[in-house]
Amino acid sequence: MTPRRAIVLLSGGLDSSTCLAVARRDGYRTVALTVDYGQRHRAELEAARRIAQALSAEAHRVVAVDLRALGGSALTSDAVDVPKGRDDAEIGTGIPVTYVPARNTVLLAVATAAAEAEEADAVYVGVNALDFSGYPDCRPEFLDAFREVARVGTRRGVEGRPIEFRAPLLHLTKAGIARLALETGVPVGLTLSCYDPPSARAGSSVVHCGRCDACRLRRRGFAEAGLADPTTYAE
Amino acid sequence: MTPRRAIVLLSGGLDSSTCLAVARRDGYRTVALTVDYGQRHRAELEAARRIAQALSAEAHRVVAVDLRALGGSALTSDAVDVPKGRDDAEIGTGIPVTYVPARNTVLLAVATAAAEAEEADAVYVGVNALDFSGYPDCRPEFLDAFREVARVGTRRGVEGRPIEFRAPLLHLTKAGIARLALETGVPVGLTLSCYDPPSARAGSSVVHCGRCDACRLRRRGFAEAGLADPTTYAE
Repeated sequence: MTPRRAIVLLSGGLDSSTCLAVARRDGYRTVALTVDYGQRHRAELEAARRIAQALSAEAHRVVAVDLRALGGSALTSDAVDVPKGRDDAEIGTGIPVTYVPARNTVLLAVATAAAEAEEADAVYVGVNALDFSGYPDCRPEFLDAFREVARVGTRRGVEGRPIEFRAPLLHLTKAGIARLALETGVPVGLTLSCYDPPSARAGSSVVHCGRCDACRLRRRGFAEAGLADPTTYAE
Repeated sequence: MTPRRAIVLLSGGLDSSTCLAVARRDGYRTVALTVDYGQRHRAELEAARRIAQALSAEAHRVVAVDLRALGGSALTSDAVDVPKGRDDAEIGTGIPVTYVPARNTVLLAVATAAAEAEEADAVYVGVNALDFSGYPDCRPEFLDAFREVARVGTRRGVEGRPIEFRAPLLHLTKAGIARLALETGVPVGLTLSCYDPPSARAGSSVVHCGRCDACRLRRRGFAEAGLADPTTYAE
């Protein structure tokens, strides 16, 4: 029997890299899919490329979706600063300025297109409902709604072979994700979670700013899991 | 009271141009949104630009989504030919090779992002369930499923002001759309519906191939409505 194929949304961060390793552990042949939605930092794309290679993805597709033409988020606009130094009580309250309008809707839409084009059976996405940092499109009800869109809106769905959407990190804490990453062989030292990474010298290890929400959640996760994070933090 | 704002998905064809005119008639300030998903022909983008201007859209945003990186459709791949000369019985049976994987899911996802970024209250989309040429993502159940995704997956939805999705052409025939276009003041002579338009000389009028499914449906619509199509057909 031919192994089934999965599209894995891969940003290059810890969560999506863990998804790729889990898809592989689940027996899928994997195609990594990075959606370049106009991130201000290209380091994320570089990290994704290295991780796809390290985890033996069959292919790594990069689809550009230029959301910068729309504005509206600190992650895609030069006019909005990434918040730094928020304490733990502030992270997770309200929707932060790093919210990219409808990001996961766009990511899953492109992944659905990829699944149809590559004849893949499943899509893996690293959304996480617990340490979700306030994004509405990281909740289980969002995923359920999207499954229905893909079922009624695609050739595969109409033909009775709907694409499966798997979110293996949905109910894990960041500590749980750090443990799962280690268990499944993620090259953790290559993963970059930072919203605003300091420029790294060519060839040096991954450097996190240490102050944005993503860095703080990541650091706390490793600390709570009692595991070492092999990447460097600027502060 | 400030007029409400709508995002209108605009390809430059007859249907989406009619949507833009309808949104305006409904009292919305409009932002036209063209998603450039790697069409083989740039004429479509040019047509959209002229129509947005002619129908007084406040802005025309073009978001590139490079689905060519995925392949899988005659409309985005150089490896698949656009079918020509299919008769009316063939059009509308099965899913044609011009199906772009998950196209309307991608279009509505980007429109949702635009609506959030522009603080728009509504999205207009020119999908049509009758003369739909076999695409699963032109059906009412697809739109209903997408409404739910946008309700649970966006900041506006969480805040209790969900984006409205309007598909004013959903249950119209092509003849009905041709009539509505004339009624609402669409500059029909600027609209380009063709999947594979012959090269037009600079400054010349819009030229349709006349043989692809989109041209045949358009032509039949005008004929059935007893209206003249001011564009030219190559054959």
